[in-house]
Amino acid sequence: MESQQEESAAAALDMIKVLEITSESHKGTKESPDDRSEVASEKQTTDWLTDLDEVEEILNYKFKSKKLLEEALTHASFSDQGFSYERLEYIGDSVLNLLFTKEQYFLYPDLPPGALTRLRSANVNTEKLARVAIKHKLHRYLRHKMPLLEEQIREFSQAILDYPLHSNGLVDAPKALADIVEAAIGAVFIDSNFSIDVVWKIFKDLLEPIISQETLKVHPVAELYVEGSQKRQQWRSHVRTKAAHAPLISF
Amino acid sequence: MESQQEESAAAALDMIKVLEITSESHKGTKESPDDRSEVASEKQTTDWLTDLDEVEEILNYKFKSKKLLEEALTHASFSDQGFSYERLEYIGDSVLNLLFTKEQYFLYPDLPPGALTRLRSANVNTEKLARVAIKHKLHRYLRHKMPLLEEQIREFSQAILDYPLHSNGLVDAPKALADIVEAAIGAVFIDSNFSIDVVWKIFKDLLEPIISQETLKVHPVAELYVEGSQKRQQWRSHVRTKAAHAPLISF
Repeated sequence: MESQQEESAAAALDMIKVLEITSESHKGTKESPDDRSEVASEKQTTDWLTDLDEVEEILNYKFKSKKLLEEALTHASFSDQGFSYERLEYIGDSVLNLLFTKEQYFLYPDLPPGALTRLRSANVNTEKLARVAIKHKLHRYLRHKMPLLEEQIREFSQAILDYPLHSNGLVDAPKALADIVEAAIGAVFIDSNFSIDVVWKIFKDLLEPIISQETLKVHPVAELYVEGSQKRQQWRSHVRTKAAHAPLISF
Repeated sequence: MESQQEESAAAALDMIKVLEITSESHKGTKESPDDRSEVASEKQTTDWLTDLDEVEEILNYKFKSKKLLEEALTHASFSDQGFSYERLEYIGDSVLNLLFTKEQYFLYPDLPPGALTRLRSANVNTEKLARVAIKHKLHRYLRHKMPLLEEQIREFSQAILDYPLHSNGLVDAPKALADIVEAAIGAVFIDSNFSIDVVWKIFKDLLEPIISQETLKVHPVAELYVEGSQKRQQWRSHVRTKAAHAPLISF
């Protein structure tokens, strides 16, 4: 395994490359809806097909049904398509959970379920997966009409430079970035006739650096973060519940 | 699909059969630790091996590694074995989640992720899986030293007679019953060289009646229950958190 410093330097270098790219206009949304003359539409379609080929190259996987990949990269805001990545993300999340469960089960034969859950959570969460999207430039291929997303992606790409492995909740990760990684996993799962082996073969390297029991220990905040985010959610829900039933509450 | 009345009658009949059996001494724990002369131990081992064969018949699956099945049926309280079903349950839970995700994804091509999650939760929860254990008499093969469990199982078997499909949280389901179903799923998954297809083939019928979008609609409480149980958990955690930090709180 690389040392912390080397990892840190490599991650910084990666990010500089990425920022150079995100400073270009976004590929999937570079044409505003107003520009859509018929010619523009035609050009956009050609671009989009090229985009899909590029994503196949990133994934090193050729889709039997290109429609699945198209769906995996389309946000609900890009509404004229009548489909979005939401259902594929749902299926991809389950596949990813099982894959980490399986890998870590054998990697750590003595860990009890509680520790295994924490380890899995460290790898299957919004920030971790959003980093994967940025690292492999998948964000450039997301079709959407969310006015603020590009700025959020730029901020996120900048902010994670300070945290080589995981910020443990200290930076805001755009959920859409994690979503397209999970949706791509769902798409490959379906396209490969439900082969968890094919999915793992494709995504194992893409998901690097995978957070291990050792790196999780190096970052003790991780554990607190997982617990903390549950508590924060509970607290928010509690406040909402109380707010709905009482006119004024002070704690 | 059977009518509600037929289902109800069939369930009642099933339960009567089950209760006749649970009123016998429990197979896995019928000998108390004090009885363990060498002869008794030997007899117990023979019984246990017969038990494992019987469970294989119930599952209609022959294990390559019988050790996995043994582990799936051993509670941590049965401590002299140095292993328990906990880790297999953890892996089985992930497998079951993916299997329902996959099935329902194709069964309901128009359902959004929120509705799919509710449908999956209705099938993968403690009460539903504890019912599966009782229906197929798997509870008779659980090795444990939990003094109260036999009584809890009897009460649960009795209580669910009033609710043919699901009580939606109105009866207390012994978690250990759901655990051995998930652990058995984990055991088959590993034993079959990680084939989700083999697991589904083995468990699809055992998991019947599978709660569909239609039967979930018939039981509108189900949805409330899923939300309610999350809220209850949040509330409990909140109360614990507050209790740890303040000497006296009143809501």
